[in-house]
Amino acid sequence: MARYDFRSPRLHLEATLSSGAEIGLGKSQAHYLQNVLRLKPGDWVLVFNGRDGEWRAALSGAGKRAALTLQEPTRGQTLPLDLHYLFAPLKHERLDYMVQKAVEMGVSHLQPVLTQHAQAQRIKVERVRANAIEAAEQCGVLTVPEVCEPISFGRALGERQPDRLLVFCDEDAEVKDPIAALSAARAAPGQARATPPLAVLVGPEGGFSDAERAAVLKEPNVVRLALGPRILRADTAAVAALALVQAVLGDWR
Amino acid sequence: MARYDFRSPRLHLEATLSSGAEIGLGKSQAHYLQNVLRLKPGDWVLVFNGRDGEWRAALSGAGKRAALTLQEPTRGQTLPLDLHYLFAPLKHERLDYMVQKAVEMGVSHLQPVLTQHAQAQRIKVERVRANAIEAAEQCGVLTVPEVCEPISFGRALGERQPDRLLVFCDEDAEVKDPIAALSAARAAPGQARATPPLAVLVGPEGGFSDAERAAVLKEPNVVRLALGPRILRADTAAVAALALVQAVLGDWR
Repeated sequence: MARYDFRSPRLHLEATLSSGAEIGLGKSQAHYLQNVLRLKPGDWVLVFNGRDGEWRAALSGAGKRAALTLQEPTRGQTLPLDLHYLFAPLKHERLDYMVQKAVEMGVSHLQPVLTQHAQAQRIKVERVRANAIEAAEQCGVLTVPEVCEPISFGRALGERQPDRLLVFCDEDAEVKDPIAALSAARAAPGQARATPPLAVLVGPEGGFSDAERAAVLKEPNVVRLALGPRILRADTAAVAALALVQAVLGDWR
Repeated sequence: MARYDFRSPRLHLEATLSSGAEIGLGKSQAHYLQNVLRLKPGDWVLVFNGRDGEWRAALSGAGKRAALTLQEPTRGQTLPLDLHYLFAPLKHERLDYMVQKAVEMGVSHLQPVLTQHAQAQRIKVERVRANAIEAAEQCGVLTVPEVCEPISFGRALGERQPDRLLVFCDEDAEVKDPIAALSAARAAPGQARATPPLAVLVGPEGGFSDAERAAVLKEPNVVRLALGPRILRADTAAVAALALVQAVLGDWR
């Protein structure tokens, strides 16, 4: 990320972004910029909305009439990699943490999946969305990942299109070369940079049930990874698996 | 980790482990087993000491006379991979978290390095050691990583043996195939499984200084990784980098 400005404050906005546009700030964003960050009129902020790229904007006005005036584009809009992250819900801070990590690792969809041994059987989707926005603002992505309502394990498997490679992180799997396993899923030579749609499934701390494991292993287009000989916490497994997937198949190349 | 018993409580002991040995428990371990886990005499615990492998032991006695009687070995001692993890100290819970993750990822040495932009310029080594022991107990490793006193950045570079591959995680690096970069450091064909001594260096949230970066890039046997186009928190970078290193060069194969 040479020369990327990651020190300016960065905000996600809903409004359309174009040169010279003046965008009123919501109450919490105005408070954050003026009172928490103590920005003054004229100070810069980076803004993005997932559609119009990233822009440099200047703070104008004060108090409730604070606004951002867009000055110049800093980066053009790019599409996120089509990478779904399927995970058994965790509780509280561990969930917040996992969502933050998944956003940093470049996922496009966050799909909670209710497994038998999941720590939690429901999640506050709005809280997850707020965390995803904040993580996206801080890690420089140009699109906030979509956060989906939780679904059952069976439905998650059933709804997957067969062309979406499913990377199944399974503590019971044999430890063997994960790079080779993922590389086999790459497109043929001559299409070296084409990336298939991807999904990474990480189970709960208690592991998958035998029935869940059997169901996944019946599915086509599945790569099964042990993620080494040690036990990984679910949030460690998430980052590790996503790192391997991004490095072999994704945008870390 | 097929058939590995990760549900039994697991304790690190200092004493020598051999069949039939009866090992008295320290006050906090006795409290943990009897009062926190509510184990009863005869209940099983797994124990290890980093030298004699892992054993199944039965709780005996009660209160202050609680002891563990070793019954049978469950796993033979293995040597950890020679993998040093060099990191700029973080504060408080973030440090605890990073240490836990590094242990899960199989490092053999935790070496805090004082960089210019580090969040903290000192750490409580005993606290880090206690966290490393707890993480080792929970993730199934047979050896607790060594925790070293913090040293300066210059000293960390100066003390590295040139044959120890240094994986330099640098947010300013160009994004390009990290698998290829790491694979180039593997031993020649015919020695496919030999692993060189390894070190992974992850900088602070504020990044490395220009002087620090220049100093590393002058050193021999360095692989520089961007870890993708997004900004990663230091603890995310740690897990991601260690996952790539373990998958290409380490014990995830």
